[in-house]
Amino acid sequence: MSREYRVAVVGATGAVGMAMRTILAERRFPVKELVPLASARSAGKPLDFAGETVLCRELTGHSFDGVDLALFSAGAGTSLDYAPVARDAGCVVIDNSSAWRMDPQVPLVVPEVNPEDVAWHKGIIANPNCSTIQMVVVMKPLHGEARITRVVVSTYQAVSGTGAEAIDELVRQSDDILAGKGPQISVYPHQIAFNCLPHIDVFLEDGSTKEEQKMVDETKKILGDPSIKVSATCVRVPVRNGHSESVNLEFATPMSPERAREILSRAPGVLLADDPATNTYPMPIVASGKDETYVGRVRRDPTVANGLNLWVVADNLRKGAALNAVQIGELLVERDLIRVP
Amino acid sequence: MSREYRVAVVGATGAVGMAMRTILAERRFPVKELVPLASARSAGKPLDFAGETVLCRELTGHSFDGVDLALFSAGAGTSLDYAPVARDAGCVVIDNSSAWRMDPQVPLVVPEVNPEDVAWHKGIIANPNCSTIQMVVVMKPLHGEARITRVVVSTYQAVSGTGAEAIDELVRQSDDILAGKGPQISVYPHQIAFNCLPHIDVFLEDGSTKEEQKMVDETKKILGDPSIKVSATCVRVPVRNGHSESVNLEFATPMSPERAREILSRAPGVLLADDPATNTYPMPIVASGKDETYVGRVRRDPTVANGLNLWVVADNLRKGAALNAVQIGELLVERDLIRVP
Repeated sequence: MSREYRVAVVGATGAVGMAMRTILAERRFPVKELVPLASARSAGKPLDFAGETVLCRELTGHSFDGVDLALFSAGAGTSLDYAPVARDAGCVVIDNSSAWRMDPQVPLVVPEVNPEDVAWHKGIIANPNCSTIQMVVVMKPLHGEARITRVVVSTYQAVSGTGAEAIDELVRQSDDILAGKGPQISVYPHQIAFNCLPHIDVFLEDGSTKEEQKMVDETKKILGDPSIKVSATCVRVPVRNGHSESVNLEFATPMSPERAREILSRAPGVLLADDPATNTYPMPIVASGKDETYVGRVRRDPTVANGLNLWVVADNLRKGAALNAVQIGELLVERDLIRVP
Repeated sequence: MSREYRVAVVGATGAVGMAMRTILAERRFPVKELVPLASARSAGKPLDFAGETVLCRELTGHSFDGVDLALFSAGAGTSLDYAPVARDAGCVVIDNSSAWRMDPQVPLVVPEVNPEDVAWHKGIIANPNCSTIQMVVVMKPLHGEARITRVVVSTYQAVSGTGAEAIDELVRQSDDILAGKGPQISVYPHQIAFNCLPHIDVFLEDGSTKEEQKMVDETKKILGDPSIKVSATCVRVPVRNGHSESVNLEFATPMSPERAREILSRAPGVLLADDPATNTYPMPIVASGKDETYVGRVRRDPTVANGLNLWVVADNLRKGAALNAVQIGELLVERDLIRVP
């Protein structure tokens, strides 16, 4: 009989935590027991897992005793504090926060891109930023054929990336504005309904945001190629779920749109949706709820020697967060790596 | 006493036509008589101009007899048919459609950028595409100091650019979705509420859209520099009014963010809104209803020798259409050019 695992979900009540529970069940991850963890506020709350009700527990220093694998999605602070606690208790951590991503001792993994990196984990594996994951899933197969030298990316990010309270805020603000009332502002610094905010995560010294810097740094680490240049502009748009990206790529050697489509049509985790004649292109309302990263609007950029423009859309709660984390877990199961070395 | 003019507005009942009437009045354009023109359907409809009611007339072959200046915004077909009729009747045309923009006999003018081009008009002057106007207003002063060699732009375009019926569609779809009903789709090929559509205007052979091609061609013509390379991705977002643009610029010589801010802070028609410390950056809900092109998020792009990223937002009905057309009219008044040569 194959091994089953005690699996904790830290931040089990959040938007990503909920998606983690759903996806663990959907994909029949070998769960012996699910341990949902959250702050004291949520302790005792009944949560669904695979059609059964499990009670949420408070996250404490002893939460990981006897737990084999923990998926964390409760913010960088919680991950910084508790991932080492879990690891020291012999529990392997897959962490969805930004806390450990750039730590050289921590693999940063997208299963379609760098599965081999799980091999050197030391108890903590990081799940990349949502906007980075969908971009590298598409870049990887193209990079393998004609080296990508530079990326200019502009994002159109959904509010679900911020959390369940941001989805509520978009809905409430939209309702109020349509009713002629002034919108209440609480989650974002400005109104998000019927607006665009060029501001995700905090601002850094150089005028970029941390979200933009994540795309720069994480892309290099995941693709294992520090020479790839990335310039990112990250923007929040009034979409409930599903991040979109306008991606401009420069290659070292020729890459025609036809060849790119051929490669992408058989790339793992990628769904090519590219038929202008039938108005077929990726859109958040289509990608939301799906596992694949959608790519379309593949066309030559004639302003550089070897340029390509792409439009990339994925479910940021699934591939951008919970699904990718569960896929990392599946890799660990396959390779019998659910143990702290 | 200074001269006053008989001014026609073709497409007077549309979103841009309405803005043209408002802006002509606001800016006290020397109007002796306003002649609102539209299709037979709207003939007799009472319209507001400067607090007075004027009756809409049907556009016919004789509509321009005795008219000095006509602002057209009724689509390319109407402009192709009627702009020559107006010109032959001795009426100078400022055309907001795409019909005449790339005609070498027709100046394509943004008053802050290439006012000198009105001098050689032959009866028709073209108003550029909305997304191009706001971009060149910002590019021009920077280009003057350190030549811009390449632009990669991704747009976030409001539905008002499509017309009043598209604003209605966004509102109706948002209402229906929030009420749990399926959205009716009529103006766009797909749902626009809570979605992004990487599709504006028709698709061309090379996989780009006509909107994207307009940004490429019109930028070169307005700036009078065919060497500027432009790669554009144009996207419709669920915003009522105000286009946003993520603009990546490459310069021939160094251009620091500090120097760019200095130049932009005193550039005509530009409002620098760039203070991350106070969450100050351009947004559609702020730029809507304003005349200035807002620019912010000015920061270095370290992935090229001389690179800069900018975030540019303007009211697409005003600076992107009606205001720019009225400003061209003002240039013609100043230079006494309201006559067909």
